[in-house]
Amino acid sequence: MKTEIYGGTTILEPEPTFKPRRTWRNWLIGNPLATADAPKHTIGKLIGLAVFASDALSSTAYATQEIMFILAAAGTAAMMYVIPISIAIVTLMTIVAISYEQTIHAYPGGGGAYIVARDNLGELPAQTAGAALLTDYVLTVAVSVSSGVAQITSAFPALYPHRVLIAVSLVVFVMIMNLRGVKESGTAFAIPTYFFVLAMAVTIGMGFFRYFTGTLGTVVNPPAFDTGTVLLTVTPFLLLRAFSSGTSALTGIEAISNGITAFKEPRSRNAGITLIWMAAILGTFFMGISFLSTHIGAVPSEQETVISQLARTVFGADNFLYLAVIAGTAVILIMAANTAFADFPRLSAISANDGFLPRQFTFRGSRLVYSRGIIALAGVASLLIILFQASVNRLIPLYAIGVFLSFTLSQAGMARRWWKSGHLKPGVEIKEAGSTLVHDRNWVAKLIINGLGSVCTFVVMVVFAVTKFSEGGWVIVVLIPFLVAVFFTIHHHYKSLAGKLSLENYGSPRRIVRNRVIVPIAGVHRGSLTALTYARTLSDDVTAVHVSIDPVESKKVREKWAFYGEGTRLVILDSPYRLFLEPLMEYIQNLLALRHANEMITVVLPQFVPAHWWENLLHNQSALLLRFGLLFKPGVVIIEVPYQV
Amino acid sequence: MKTEIYGGTTILEPEPTFKPRRTWRNWLIGNPLATADAPKHTIGKLIGLAVFASDALSSTAYATQEIMFILAAAGTAAMMYVIPISIAIVTLMTIVAISYEQTIHAYPGGGGAYIVARDNLGELPAQTAGAALLTDYVLTVAVSVSSGVAQITSAFPALYPHRVLIAVSLVVFVMIMNLRGVKESGTAFAIPTYFFVLAMAVTIGMGFFRYFTGTLGTVVNPPAFDTGTVLLTVTPFLLLRAFSSGTSALTGIEAISNGITAFKEPRSRNAGITLIWMAAILGTFFMGISFLSTHIGAVPSEQETVISQLARTVFGADNFLYLAVIAGTAVILIMAANTAFADFPRLSAISANDGFLPRQFTFRGSRLVYSRGIIALAGVASLLIILFQASVNRLIPLYAIGVFLSFTLSQAGMARRWWKSGHLKPGVEIKEAGSTLVHDRNWVAKLIINGLGSVCTFVVMVVFAVTKFSEGGWVIVVLIPFLVAVFFTIHHHYKSLAGKLSLENYGSPRRIVRNRVIVPIAGVHRGSLTALTYARTLSDDVTAVHVSIDPVESKKVREKWAFYGEGTRLVILDSPYRLFLEPLMEYIQNLLALRHANEMITVVLPQFVPAHWWENLLHNQSALLLRFGLLFKPGVVIIEVPYQV
Repeated sequence: MKTEIYGGTTILEPEPTFKPRRTWRNWLIGNPLATADAPKHTIGKLIGLAVFASDALSSTAYATQEIMFILAAAGTAAMMYVIPISIAIVTLMTIVAISYEQTIHAYPGGGGAYIVARDNLGELPAQTAGAALLTDYVLTVAVSVSSGVAQITSAFPALYPHRVLIAVSLVVFVMIMNLRGVKESGTAFAIPTYFFVLAMAVTIGMGFFRYFTGTLGTVVNPPAFDTGTVLLTVTPFLLLRAFSSGTSALTGIEAISNGITAFKEPRSRNAGITLIWMAAILGTFFMGISFLSTHIGAVPSEQETVISQLARTVFGADNFLYLAVIAGTAVILIMAANTAFADFPRLSAISANDGFLPRQFTFRGSRLVYSRGIIALAGVASLLIILFQASVNRLIPLYAIGVFLSFTLSQAGMARRWWKSGHLKPGVEIKEAGSTLVHDRNWVAKLIINGLGSVCTFVVMVVFAVTKFSEGGWVIVVLIPFLVAVFFTIHHHYKSLAGKLSLENYGSPRRIVRNRVIVPIAGVHRGSLTALTYARTLSDDVTAVHVSIDPVESKKVREKWAFYGEGTRLVILDSPYRLFLEPLMEYIQNLLALRHANEMITVVLPQFVPAHWWENLLHNQSALLLRFGLLFKPGVVIIEVPYQV
Repeated sequence: MKTEIYGGTTILEPEPTFKPRRTWRNWLIGNPLATADAPKHTIGKLIGLAVFASDALSSTAYATQEIMFILAAAGTAAMMYVIPISIAIVTLMTIVAISYEQTIHAYPGGGGAYIVARDNLGELPAQTAGAALLTDYVLTVAVSVSSGVAQITSAFPALYPHRVLIAVSLVVFVMIMNLRGVKESGTAFAIPTYFFVLAMAVTIGMGFFRYFTGTLGTVVNPPAFDTGTVLLTVTPFLLLRAFSSGTSALTGIEAISNGITAFKEPRSRNAGITLIWMAAILGTFFMGISFLSTHIGAVPSEQETVISQLARTVFGADNFLYLAVIAGTAVILIMAANTAFADFPRLSAISANDGFLPRQFTFRGSRLVYSRGIIALAGVASLLIILFQASVNRLIPLYAIGVFLSFTLSQAGMARRWWKSGHLKPGVEIKEAGSTLVHDRNWVAKLIINGLGSVCTFVVMVVFAVTKFSEGGWVIVVLIPFLVAVFFTIHHHYKSLAGKLSLENYGSPRRIVRNRVIVPIAGVHRGSLTALTYARTLSDDVTAVHVSIDPVESKKVREKWAFYGEGTRLVILDSPYRLFLEPLMEYIQNLLALRHANEMITVVLPQFVPAHWWENLLHNQSALLLRFGLLFKPGVVIIEVPYQV
């Protein structure tokens, strides 16, 4: 450890020997990592894909089914629209993915939609995007873990009563893994993620092989078709709703843009390639599942998922590969939470650095991760799980509105950026907070693509907000503006504090010409004399003050003071109403009223430090009350001189 | 307000102007009373009887019935034993009352059994008596209010679900009345108490008139005789149990001895006369009720109380006087709580003054009553009511063991006192802590009476403890020793503290020859410069310490320090693990290791005082943690210099 010393006289300086101690925390999350080692604790593309793609890939487990559920209202014939709708979704996905790929290169510091909105649209859209994303990550953890636990409890119904405990334990487990560091959690969770990718790839591959060889067939014993109120006509609004529901496949595609800083250098390149991989896998899986599910005549049902129907048609229900797909699907749902744990802390650190969240979120813990963000995420998500009793149905309406709001803002921000770029002279560079803007030759095409993406994602968001409003979506509609208001309040605090602390127009500091020291004493004993001795080193102007409640006690104080007070002035305040604090406060306030601008008043209190905490209950906490009473008065300093008992 | 000033130079001293402010508390409990006015705020015999007799008189409402319940096990014929047993109880009551009357004169400072045991038997019996009495007072409040509420809810069954709320509200009401002062609560509660006394006197008087005129008759439609398991033989043990149950008439007779200080001067005389009045009324009522109830053939029953049977036989059920007796009985049960509110705070103040309870119990509140004792009693009793859901049956087994334990100790203490008195030479005086001992000519007779009283009350206590053990009496058997242990632990703390603070062998205080001041700074701004300016007034040896977490930030600090540091030495501690507290603690500890015995280390921290409490959440509470970490290290003082934002 290096210690630098500047100025002053040369005096004996202790040798710095600081080494972090080994505690239970080291056992739980590993030994502390030095700041200088930060570049080593980043992840490559393979681990990065596992960390950031889990959320997006998990949506392939239900996106096709969501489309089918909506179309089912118009009967079996409407299933013909599954493939066109899926193509439209993959197109939108491509636009969004390309847009984020460009964002990653333009803003290598991470922050995705938040930063894009901040630099191109302004503070309010930026904070809206931040609130939407942070809310969404909390919901991702709560929903994905709850649905993973729902899969487990449907396999083992005996565990159902313990679902909340299991879900919260899983959240805590993922939290601890993330506190160990991004590399550690990424490596550990890569196995289940790639297990799912492999299982799904084999299913789709084998499905297409059978389709082309004509041996695919249809679902044996499909679940009953939930007719409900069948419309039998396909309206444009129904198609729009089906499209919106299917866009749940897009959720998570923004993850990498928020977590660029987790990647090894060259960061942007690695993050960008990982995003392309992810989008390719996501699109292939989603399209493959939609195509095959339609061809095997899969039926949307609460009893059996479309994925299960597809897997057992491809492999047969007894095949172990079928079980692997089912297990992989349960696991990827829980893994989606890990993506949120990678993004929430990074995004909250960026926001905190801008002064919109408590500054504490910017501190990196002993393992170089933003520990407080990780713990905050786990805490809020656990609270949600407990409140909603790990019920997916009640949580899901809250979901996806936020993420599409962030897509819309991100797309709009990029569109605005192309517009600015198009109006720059070639060769001119504009340095912005998070990026550098230059002229782009293809700005019109890019503007059109991002503008279209923005409109589409906006429409999806509105459809979500309207259709899910009464089911609980209103919570999000209320919550996001509320959070934005909180963020701006926090920002106002930091800005106003910075202004008040600023050294602009400071000149030279005000001299303190007099330090008046007051030593309140209840009795004359070693504790109060320790305080007195200390007080006398601070100033030549020391006054002991005794509040007289009991005349017998006061007489003793007076007599002892004559001997032990060493000539220090003693003021005895008569307290006819047996109050201690009030007469003392009154006395100090009167001194303050007479105070010269360059004068300080210092109150020195003896403080017993008992050996056990409960012994404090046997004493008045007058010092604490006095401190609180005087805190807001300028010119007063309170000192407690500890007397170890 | 008078202010005395001793020693020191004559400097401008503010004029004391302290007047207690008017707040909502004044509205609730009245304006503060000056200590000098204390003699005015005492009570005479008439109010004193109302305050302290409520508890004892309320027991006449059930004592006769308790005897009958036990005897009922041997059939109707056994009722002939009610009168002899009542005579035995009144005899014991007379012994106990005479004994307490003597106690009152011997120990005018109050404290009853506690003080008698302390001065004559030793610390352990004294603390046992104290624990027994304090427990008993808490139970008196819980039981009497619960049974009063039970009477109300049996008249208005719709109120039954709200019984806990009603009971707790009544406790809070009695608490507030007592916080207003002993005179105020005594006067207010005298009305219902004397209402009961009058109603009962009329009932018994009219009963005897009818008995002598031969018009009394027997109970019309008596409730069914609860046969249960009828033994049909009267065993000595049954008579002993009946006697013990009947001694519940004695509970509360000790009340005045604990509350002498509430009386006007001459205290002992006033208290003693009040005790004699109380005992006379109590004995007459109890004997009268026992005699008349037996003669009218009253039947012990859960359906109708013996008092109700007596009153309706005397007046007829339609007579308004019958209703007055019933109402008066309900009210006196609640009033019994008021006696506990008069005694518990006074006894706990005496005990706290001896150092066996937290010293806070000795402080008198703005209305000259021991407010903290009153509030503590209300709090614990309310907790009991909530825990036991205001059920009398579940609380009653806990009751009366404690009070008979205190009777036994008090009687034994007085017996021991007569013994000591008998062995003193006439004319010799021995000053004890609470009284003066002189030779008493009749010491043998008095010794025999108190010895007998002690044995009888001991037997009753054992019968209670044994017969009620399994119903919950074990709680008391466990609780009292536990409380005694707690009292001695508290006492040990105060004694050891007094020893450590004592100025014996103090010599002259250690000079402080060097005060090394450390100013930890996170950045260079108005807050830290305010702290620096203050620190420089304390000592010539000031060192600013910056813990370097972020090199960019540290560079700024260094550069700004060159300008604003005014030559103060700046030490930069490198923190490779991004910790703030630990390197600083290490640095201070190294300084402490090098510390000379006469050297102090003072840590001056800038402290922001935000305008709103929640703004503290946006800052690290490093100062708090540092204070806690350094609290146990001798030679370190921490100063927070407030910077009002």
